[in-house]
Amino acid sequence: MNKGIKIATIGGGSSYTPELMEGFIKRYHELPIKEIWLVDVEEGLEKVSIDAQMAQRMWDAAGYDVKVHATLDRNQALKDADFVTTQFRVGFLEARIKDERIPLSYGMLGQETNGAGGIFKALRTIPVILDIVEDMKRLCPNAWLINFTNPSGMITEAVIQYGKWNRCIGLCNVPVIAMMKEPEAIGYRKEDLIYQFVGLNHFHWHKVFDKQGNELTSKVIEAMLEGKAVGLPANINNVPFFHDQIKRLGMIPCGYHRYYYRQEEMLKHSIEEMNTTGTRGQQVKKTEEQLFELYKDPRLDHKPEELAKRGGAYYSDAACECINAIYNNKNIHMVVSTQNNGAIPDLKNESIVEVSCLIGGNGARPLAWGPLPSAPRGWLQVMKAMEECTIEAAITGDYGTLLEAFTINPLIPMGASAKKVCDELLLAHQKYLPQFTDKIKQLKEEGLLIKDAVVRNLVENEQ
Amino acid sequence: MNKGIKIATIGGGSSYTPELMEGFIKRYHELPIKEIWLVDVEEGLEKVSIDAQMAQRMWDAAGYDVKVHATLDRNQALKDADFVTTQFRVGFLEARIKDERIPLSYGMLGQETNGAGGIFKALRTIPVILDIVEDMKRLCPNAWLINFTNPSGMITEAVIQYGKWNRCIGLCNVPVIAMMKEPEAIGYRKEDLIYQFVGLNHFHWHKVFDKQGNELTSKVIEAMLEGKAVGLPANINNVPFFHDQIKRLGMIPCGYHRYYYRQEEMLKHSIEEMNTTGTRGQQVKKTEEQLFELYKDPRLDHKPEELAKRGGAYYSDAACECINAIYNNKNIHMVVSTQNNGAIPDLKNESIVEVSCLIGGNGARPLAWGPLPSAPRGWLQVMKAMEECTIEAAITGDYGTLLEAFTINPLIPMGASAKKVCDELLLAHQKYLPQFTDKIKQLKEEGLLIKDAVVRNLVENEQ
Amino acid sequence: MNKGIKIATIGGGSSYTPELMEGFIKRYHELPIKEIWLVDVEEGLEKVSIDAQMAQRMWDAAGYDVKVHATLDRNQALKDADFVTTQFRVGFLEARIKDERIPLSYGMLGQETNGAGGIFKALRTIPVILDIVEDMKRLCPNAWLINFTNPSGMITEAVIQYGKWNRCIGLCNVPVIAMMKEPEAIGYRKEDLIYQFVGLNHFHWHKVFDKQGNELTSKVIEAMLEGKAVGLPANINNVPFFHDQIKRLGMIPCGYHRYYYRQEEMLKHSIEEMNTTGTRGQQVKKTEEQLFELYKDPRLDHKPEELAKRGGAYYSDAACECINAIYNNKNIHMVVSTQNNGAIPDLKNESIVEVSCLIGGNGARPLAWGPLPSAPRGWLQVMKAMEECTIEAAITGDYGTLLEAFTINPLIPMGASAKKVCDELLLAHQKYLPQFTDKIKQLKEEGLLIKDAVVRNLVENEQ
Amino acid sequence: MNKGIKIATIGGGSSYTPELMEGFIKRYHELPIKEIWLVDVEEGLEKVSIDAQMAQRMWDAAGYDVKVHATLDRNQALKDADFVTTQFRVGFLEARIKDERIPLSYGMLGQETNGAGGIFKALRTIPVILDIVEDMKRLCPNAWLINFTNPSGMITEAVIQYGKWNRCIGLCNVPVIAMMKEPEAIGYRKEDLIYQFVGLNHFHWHKVFDKQGNELTSKVIEAMLEGKAVGLPANINNVPFFHDQIKRLGMIPCGYHRYYYRQEEMLKHSIEEMNTTGTRGQQVKKTEEQLFELYKDPRLDHKPEELAKRGGAYYSDAACECINAIYNNKNIHMVVSTQNNGAIPDLKNESIVEVSCLIGGNGARPLAWGPLPSAPRGWLQVMKAMEECTIEAAITGDYGTLLEAFTINPLIPMGASAKKVCDELLLAHQKYLPQFTDKIKQLKEEGLLIKDAVVRNLVENEQ
Repeated sequence: MNKGIKIATIGGGSSYTPELMEGFIKRYHELPIKEIWLVDVEEGLEKVSIDAQMAQRMWDAAGYDVKVHATLDRNQALKDADFVTTQFRVGFLEARIKDERIPLSYGMLGQETNGAGGIFKALRTIPVILDIVEDMKRLCPNAWLINFTNPSGMITEAVIQYGKWNRCIGLCNVPVIAMMKEPEAIGYRKEDLIYQFVGLNHFHWHKVFDKQGNELTSKVIEAMLEGKAVGLPANINNVPFFHDQIKRLGMIPCGYHRYYYRQEEMLKHSIEEMNTTGTRGQQVKKTEEQLFELYKDPRLDHKPEELAKRGGAYYSDAACECINAIYNNKNIHMVVSTQNNGAIPDLKNESIVEVSCLIGGNGARPLAWGPLPSAPRGWLQVMKAMEECTIEAAITGDYGTLLEAFTINPLIPMGASAKKVCDELLLAHQKYLPQFTDKIKQLKEEGLLIKDAVVRNLVENEQ
Repeated sequence: MNKGIKIATIGGGSSYTPELMEGFIKRYHELPIKEIWLVDVEEGLEKVSIDAQMAQRMWDAAGYDVKVHATLDRNQALKDADFVTTQFRVGFLEARIKDERIPLSYGMLGQETNGAGGIFKALRTIPVILDIVEDMKRLCPNAWLINFTNPSGMITEAVIQYGKWNRCIGLCNVPVIAMMKEPEAIGYRKEDLIYQFVGLNHFHWHKVFDKQGNELTSKVIEAMLEGKAVGLPANINNVPFFHDQIKRLGMIPCGYHRYYYRQEEMLKHSIEEMNTTGTRGQQVKKTEEQLFELYKDPRLDHKPEELAKRGGAYYSDAACECINAIYNNKNIHMVVSTQNNGAIPDLKNESIVEVSCLIGGNGARPLAWGPLPSAPRGWLQVMKAMEECTIEAAITGDYGTLLEAFTINPLIPMGASAKKVCDELLLAHQKYLPQFTDKIKQLKEEGLLIKDAVVRNLVENEQ
Repeated sequence: MNKGIKIATIGGGSSYTPELMEGFIKRYHELPIKEIWLVDVEEGLEKVSIDAQMAQRMWDAAGYDVKVHATLDRNQALKDADFVTTQFRVGFLEARIKDERIPLSYGMLGQETNGAGGIFKALRTIPVILDIVEDMKRLCPNAWLINFTNPSGMITEAVIQYGKWNRCIGLCNVPVIAMMKEPEAIGYRKEDLIYQFVGLNHFHWHKVFDKQGNELTSKVIEAMLEGKAVGLPANINNVPFFHDQIKRLGMIPCGYHRYYYRQEEMLKHSIEEMNTTGTRGQQVKKTEEQLFELYKDPRLDHKPEELAKRGGAYYSDAACECINAIYNNKNIHMVVSTQNNGAIPDLKNESIVEVSCLIGGNGARPLAWGPLPSAPRGWLQVMKAMEECTIEAAITGDYGTLLEAFTINPLIPMGASAKKVCDELLLAHQKYLPQFTDKIKQLKEEGLLIKDAVVRNLVENEQ
Repeated sequence: MNKGIKIATIGGGSSYTPELMEGFIKRYHELPIKEIWLVDVEEGLEKVSIDAQMAQRMWDAAGYDVKVHATLDRNQALKDADFVTTQFRVGFLEARIKDERIPLSYGMLGQETNGAGGIFKALRTIPVILDIVEDMKRLCPNAWLINFTNPSGMITEAVIQYGKWNRCIGLCNVPVIAMMKEPEAIGYRKEDLIYQFVGLNHFHWHKVFDKQGNELTSKVIEAMLEGKAVGLPANINNVPFFHDQIKRLGMIPCGYHRYYYRQEEMLKHSIEEMNTTGTRGQQVKKTEEQLFELYKDPRLDHKPEELAKRGGAYYSDAACECINAIYNNKNIHMVVSTQNNGAIPDLKNESIVEVSCLIGGNGARPLAWGPLPSAPRGWLQVMKAMEECTIEAAITGDYGTLLEAFTINPLIPMGASAKKVCDELLLAHQKYLPQFTDKIKQLKEEGLLIKDAVVRNLVENEQ
């Protein structure tokens, strides 16, 4: 790789791109990038252009000789790439808003990676990522695919199990934030703690130890229950966990566990939010517009503070760290989505899990955790089953399989309303769900209408 | 055993006792019973006496020399028993009504074996069954324990795993009814079909084959979806399953799956029922009173028709069939709760499962099913995890473990209301939950009140 | 099947054919056979003709209207067959003699289903059975394949896993003989015992219970150690097991375990046998010639006594019993080779195992055994690994894989001599090992000679 | 631990002690040791005194203030120790010689960690290590036990599973030597390679990758087959592996695999060695005497060159490295024996395995490997079963269990001779096998004699 590294970023027109650039710039001394290709689709042309110019300014200001390209031609970007990062969002934020509002309009959780919304985000994204993988087989067969498009775990599972592409690592900012915030909450320095994570993407727990191997998990639990910020992503409402339950659990849940452990309150909060400030997607849309206004400023040549407010902050930095660890065979501890291989013996060997890994020149090697107690074991198994049904439905377009995914999803109370939610989501996302064409056609013939007016508008505007 | 068989029936004062007698009487030619001991607790004295007299009349009418005893002394009943059947209900139907009404009063499913109610039925029953097992170790160490107290699967797991009593089989009428009704719905005779069941108690699926090994499962599914009665227990509301989902599933769900596959409608129906006819428990209470009025009639010497209307019909007949199969080493196919041992490889070897078994002189030998597809696999795994938490909480009295069971139960949307339901149930059942004494004391000190007036009355009447 | 059953028997020219006929004749009242097709290859023409005439005489004497055909045309025989039985021997008894003498000439066990010989029998047979399966897919897609060609377990695994033909059951006479002889050795009647078998073909253990579920295993072990014949096939030398070891094991080993538990003596005995009476294959060859002389007699119309002396006695009767149980959905207990599906949780779900099964209209359903103690668990795992390597080598013709099978085989002390044995066997069986053509050519070019003169002669005569 | 580290070394009178000292001395800058206690038994008093003086001279020469104590009082040594290292040999080299000569005298492999010898080394050592663990629970409950007494894997399994002491890591020099020698054999630097090890102690394979994740395993295999030294311990005869087999295997075997993959030659070589230079134990005894002569020299203050010739070289250095990694939470890659926890999904979670681990402040965290192909999977499973039987026999003293271990051991051809070997070993080691007292008494009463004169002499001298 002494020619200098080529990076291709799919979904290059994301508002996170400056964070990604910052991450690369601060690692340039050991990660000698030569060129960066930001790829996007037609509708994202303006944003990717703004990003590319902003990015180029950042590199220039840093004084490194790196060329940033914006392109709509994925082939050109992928050709001989060393690392491909994926941060695209099929259907843009409008799709996220649909994922949120349709379930909420029936009194069910609307969220982009949990419940019905999470299932549909996977349905839209998986066919696209599998296309990308086919391109990579032709154009850059030795490249690493560093995915941070959500739902990151399911995307990674689709890439590895169905796309048969093993050089893929799925990233998430949730463990990063936890490891960043918890130490000070319990009066330690980050480098003096040992972390062990186990679970699935957006559904993991962890334990903490000091350097002598003494467990500090309960300390963090106490701090969390006292209300100390211990690493909650910005997009998640801070309802406290039930003390007795978490003490019994003996592991620190991740922020997203609130959707399951405090289902009632999280749902209520989401409905209130929709009715007041708008859903998270609607809020983010505004933030994004503001960010791109900033990025347009030809004098801006560094990542603006405002970006950190988004829920996905540190995602891109984690990607840079991961690429660096692979490129330089650093053998560092990171928490990523990779093939289980026994690390969680309660799940299949071939399942994708998100666990503590050693990251080095041959990718991610998961640390074996051993068997889990009843409750976390059952949770992981049911969530993985839901993921499997979802991935299968995304690939086959089978409506019965999709209903199976809905039924087993712990956040969806199955019944006529839930089926309605499913059908409306199919209709609302029709542009991005070619695998369900027949079913959608049938729904239209049956005269299905979308209940929520905001979503109806979004759909009409698309046509 | 040439001395003639001794049967001890714990919970002998049940309204099902005449069915049990009928079952024994019709098998007497190969099952030479000598004496039957109906045991009950103080509060059940009247009912057990009525049952014993009724039972004696039935035996006398049949012309067999069998002596029926009613007793409050479990030791006397268990001494040298050959078979012990358990059909007791800790806290009587009043407890069932609490299990139903408290969750429903918070808009959650109230049911005696599902959701919060099912968890609490287990909490009350497990300590009692473990006491019985200890008595059996002393008094009848070679006896078989045939359990049909619900939740039958969890009770059997507690007996085998915690009580270390292997000669235990858990029974359920749900598979019996399915195998009784389905054949005619698809135009076959019962003896011409091959059945394969897999799952847990009240949570199993099955496949059907003709004698040539051709699968008829989809025929039964079609019949079921056309609304034909294919074996729904009397206590379950007949909401249709979603056609596409069940076709994809490729197995016939059991009646109780409605609580999960049509959660919304089942909940709605339960609330309506509570507000009109009263909950199932309240209805059953009336039926039971009527039944005992009938049983009092000194001229009645056979099982009255009215008994068949109860949800538990055929339960006792299944028990007789099972006892007969063991006693005569019949090696027949029955669907019972027994130790997994690999029959469902997706669950632990030591878990109790409800599957097709060969029943003979050394008990139940499960038929190996092999791995399940994603959705049913995930369902069984999460339900088993919930059962494990519940059993553990029943034994330890740990409140955090109980919250874990609540959280992972797919019918409980966790949050403040669910915790309220949990706490009210603890309070309402305090008389039967000695293992939770401290927690209940704390709840009282905090001034917890039970919201539902009917339940409040029941509790007050107990004191 | 009201047309009357059609049976096709591959390897119809076997000396066991009269036993098969006898088995069918005595079950004719419930198994209405119409026609039987005995298929063999060119070299077996004379024998299959003798068998067919003998068989026809047997049916005629029984007074049933069944037509027996001899043919070299497999297609004609398979066309619309209901049951296909396989009892062929690729390379005839000459091949068996090679399997025995070549290893023995290097001081290693020479046996037709164990050690190097067993591996080579599988290498020759698997390609042929897979061809048969392809024919069956075309000609009789609903037929059952009842295999009793050895090594029966590996053949069944090849058929099901590689041939993707699920309607296959592998048979063996060893459990049959055990269940026939043991009862009287401990003073019981066969119908009063409950048997549980677990393991692989020619490598299983079992437990015995009386009708009340009391374990009698140690009684049988005592009887066996006292020297009582408890079911040893005629071809196996009766070296006693080590008492302390078997008591600790707590299960009754099968006759073939002697090759592993008393390796030294079994090897010594085989060498002595070779040097005196000739190997078992050489003895059997004589017996077979005598049998066919008998069969030629136009007055003989029943199975002659002499046939029972062969090691494979009762094999064909087991096949008839199995066919009967399937045809009439009898749901009886038989010990057969079928897909594991969790019955032995220590092996993969898809592995073929030989265990207690329920045999009925949809084939064999294995009874779940649960986990095994260390020693038997390890034995099954290593033997299955050896089988897997062998099957893979049989299909791919990869020499390295074959060496892996040799190395892991517990009866082969790996090294230069064992490699010599392997190479000589390749050369000796070249006619029947097309998948190894290149390797065999190389061995010839290197001037490899076969050490044993008898085998050299056999090979020369073939050319 | 700011008081300075206290090290207790059980078996302190070993000839490897200077290597251990050297390892500590070169890491002193980050591993601030205060005191080292060398413990031994009465018979080892002279050697441990020589070692302690030699060690003190080494520390003094290095200029560090570390005090070395020699003691026979284990309590004093363990009290408040931070790390306990175990390098003792129950019965000294005389026991090793017995382990070698008795099997060889019957034509079976005699080796200290393989075959019958390895089993008996475990039988002698396990009761002693469990005693040490009980002492540690009293005297130093937070200490780490770093074991390098062989058979290291079984000892570690006994400590963790039976002793319930989790802070234990088992070490071996074999992976160390491989990683030291292989890089130059293929023209790489050690730091540019990524290693992945999987298996059991003295029975593991590995793969090698360059920093870009490209697999170099076949390069090392080629080098090995060309005869290049790629890390064979000094005590193992260099018979080449079979090329085709290893290529098919696709992993690099460890030196000890020669005993299984070239069983014939290794046995032959051992017999020749016994008949010429004496067994390895006899050779080592001489080397040891020479070493202690050197150590006595009051001018010698550094590890002499001669020590490196022993098979166990680098063992002690690995121990120092491991202690350093724990003490300083270094999170480095080492190959050690630790609890599986799913790292090798083909073995039980609780089994001890020897795999690539991350070593840091909370001990060893194994890297998950995933499922293995048939042959290595079967090998590990059978070896682990053998280990389990051996450990159980060591604890219970059950003779039947010991025979089970013998029977399943792939290097022991079971039969009368093998049982003879077992019995003679019991007799020869009677002083160190109190758990087998009754059996040994019985053997004596039966007049059992030891065949080999050298061993007979050793035993007589002990009495």
